[in-house]
Amino acid sequence: MKTPDPIRVVIYGLGQIGLETAIVILGRRDLQLVGVIDNDPAKLQRDVADLAGMKRPSGVRVSNRPDDVLGITRPDVVILATGSRFKSILPQLKECVNARTNVVSSCEELLLPHVRYAAQTRELDKLARERDVSVLGTGVNPGFAMDTMALAATSPCLDVTSIAIERVVDASSRRENLQKKVGAGMTTAQFRRGVKKEELGHVGLLESMHLVAEGLGWKLDKVDEKIKPVISKKRVRTPHVTVQSGQVAGIHHVCKGFKNRKEVLSLDLQMYVGAKKPSDRIAIQGRPDVNVVFEHGIAGDEATVAMLVATVPAMKKLEPGVRSMIDVPVPHYRSGVL
Amino acid sequence: MKTPDPIRVVIYGLGQIGLETAIVILGRRDLQLVGVIDNDPAKLQRDVADLAGMKRPSGVRVSNRPDDVLGITRPDVVILATGSRFKSILPQLKECVNARTNVVSSCEELLLPHVRYAAQTRELDKLARERDVSVLGTGVNPGFAMDTMALAATSPCLDVTSIAIERVVDASSRRENLQKKVGAGMTTAQFRRGVKKEELGHVGLLESMHLVAEGLGWKLDKVDEKIKPVISKKRVRTPHVTVQSGQVAGIHHVCKGFKNRKEVLSLDLQMYVGAKKPSDRIAIQGRPDVNVVFEHGIAGDEATVAMLVATVPAMKKLEPGVRSMIDVPVPHYRSGVL
Repeated sequence: MKTPDPIRVVIYGLGQIGLETAIVILGRRDLQLVGVIDNDPAKLQRDVADLAGMKRPSGVRVSNRPDDVLGITRPDVVILATGSRFKSILPQLKECVNARTNVVSSCEELLLPHVRYAAQTRELDKLARERDVSVLGTGVNPGFAMDTMALAATSPCLDVTSIAIERVVDASSRRENLQKKVGAGMTTAQFRRGVKKEELGHVGLLESMHLVAEGLGWKLDKVDEKIKPVISKKRVRTPHVTVQSGQVAGIHHVCKGFKNRKEVLSLDLQMYVGAKKPSDRIAIQGRPDVNVVFEHGIAGDEATVAMLVATVPAMKKLEPGVRSMIDVPVPHYRSGVL
Repeated sequence: MKTPDPIRVVIYGLGQIGLETAIVILGRRDLQLVGVIDNDPAKLQRDVADLAGMKRPSGVRVSNRPDDVLGITRPDVVILATGSRFKSILPQLKECVNARTNVVSSCEELLLPHVRYAAQTRELDKLARERDVSVLGTGVNPGFAMDTMALAATSPCLDVTSIAIERVVDASSRRENLQKKVGAGMTTAQFRRGVKKEELGHVGLLESMHLVAEGLGWKLDKVDEKIKPVISKKRVRTPHVTVQSGQVAGIHHVCKGFKNRKEVLSLDLQMYVGAKKPSDRIAIQGRPDVNVVFEHGIAGDEATVAMLVATVPAMKKLEPGVRSMIDVPVPHYRSGVL
């Protein structure tokens, strides 16, 4: 059988996730990096391999002109890693869709954008159908650990009455950006102000819960969301921050969903520096009960890159429109190493 | 939004799996049971609800004429649960495909039929493409516990070097047919003869291993398969069989796959009456390592029914041809209860 042509990929946004994704794609023979977009003047015209600390030049240089890159390289898929909020990435999504390119993005709210932005999502969905391309949000969380994986774990069930999902992440091992997002090193007062301003917290937990509910065919009649600080009991140092005893170590973020006044979904996320026992647990009550444990948890930043790369081959086959992880074939690692 | 029409389903084969599937489908509003096929004279013309011990008649009576049922009811999907071996169900598969009906089947070898029957699979694939329908094999094992789930668990990985999958099943809790298939109550000599005649053992383990390898994009250069008896150390009684101390309690079936002379895949299955700690474990070595445990294991017969029902909605959307679980959207429970 003839080897299929590699899938042509553009990376839009060269933060840590984008850069690590570039490294993975440059090492694959089934995927071809054909362009990179970023608006940071310090990165402009630099070879992406150079920025990634790789020895061999890739020949792909950073551009700050999305239309040029998309028009000239005609990618099959854009991997968009520029922001967590749907509204902030919406203009970029439209650029890609208008250029008739499929988009997969680590934008947390894009996991299920209609949860917060029904009208804009309908509009984007319409545009994507017209342009015959699909748009998908994914990542490790949201995108896998607390939603797709929980849905997959219900496969053996003839009935499901409730699901409780718990994730504990040691933020010490994560990127600087994430440690800041969970408020590590803040006072409790600073933390509360940050939560109020929506600068702190885990974006996407609500979307994860709705994705699970949508997959199960459940209509939730009440949703409850709480973000509390985890207070450090000792001094913890990471390469990026020092947390004193009594300061905020991170977040405890809980979403609960109710159906007929009963709690049927619970997503409980703790992300803080110094968490001793990272783990992921999914407890399904049903027929039969199913209890899944990821011992030592599911790693964070690498896994988001892995999910972005794993969904790229599916993008060309999805029905056009704004899609979700419910529509995607079982994601998995695939060897395509050079 | 208008509720979509229910998916029209025919069940072909009214053994225990078929009958339990019928009960589930009769209780769903998104699926409609429109016909039932079985060749057992004792079941002929009986209402399937009656055979299933349900009080309310379903109006669907057992027929032994597949062509009539398929031609008159024009189902969207046939659920075929007549046998474990590809060759034994191939004529039935062709009947369904010729009638332009998608088929999902619990036939273990159909999980990846080209492993044992390359030519016949190509022929069936061609026929299915011509008729614009798809054919899929699924179930809990093969179909989920030791293959699809293992693939899904690699999602967070940027590299995978090996996977070890272990499943321990207490056969006491399973259907009579399965207890017989694992040789419970036999002498060691009887067991060895049964394995030689291919009457004993778990059908599908080899297919599971190849499905994982195919998903990962791995070419195995050596495969090793061993079936040994598990000898009971005490007397065990189930509703179907009594096993004396020293007799066979069940099977220990192991498949190993090698790549570049290294063992990269190991599927280790123990199914015996009296197994104390049923569990499912998936240990992935890679970047990062991932260790998944299903505490208390994934239940058997109910889960096969659940997998058949869970894949029905996907069947109309799959690319035509002989498909595998790699092509199917993440399977999951879906509430569609009447």
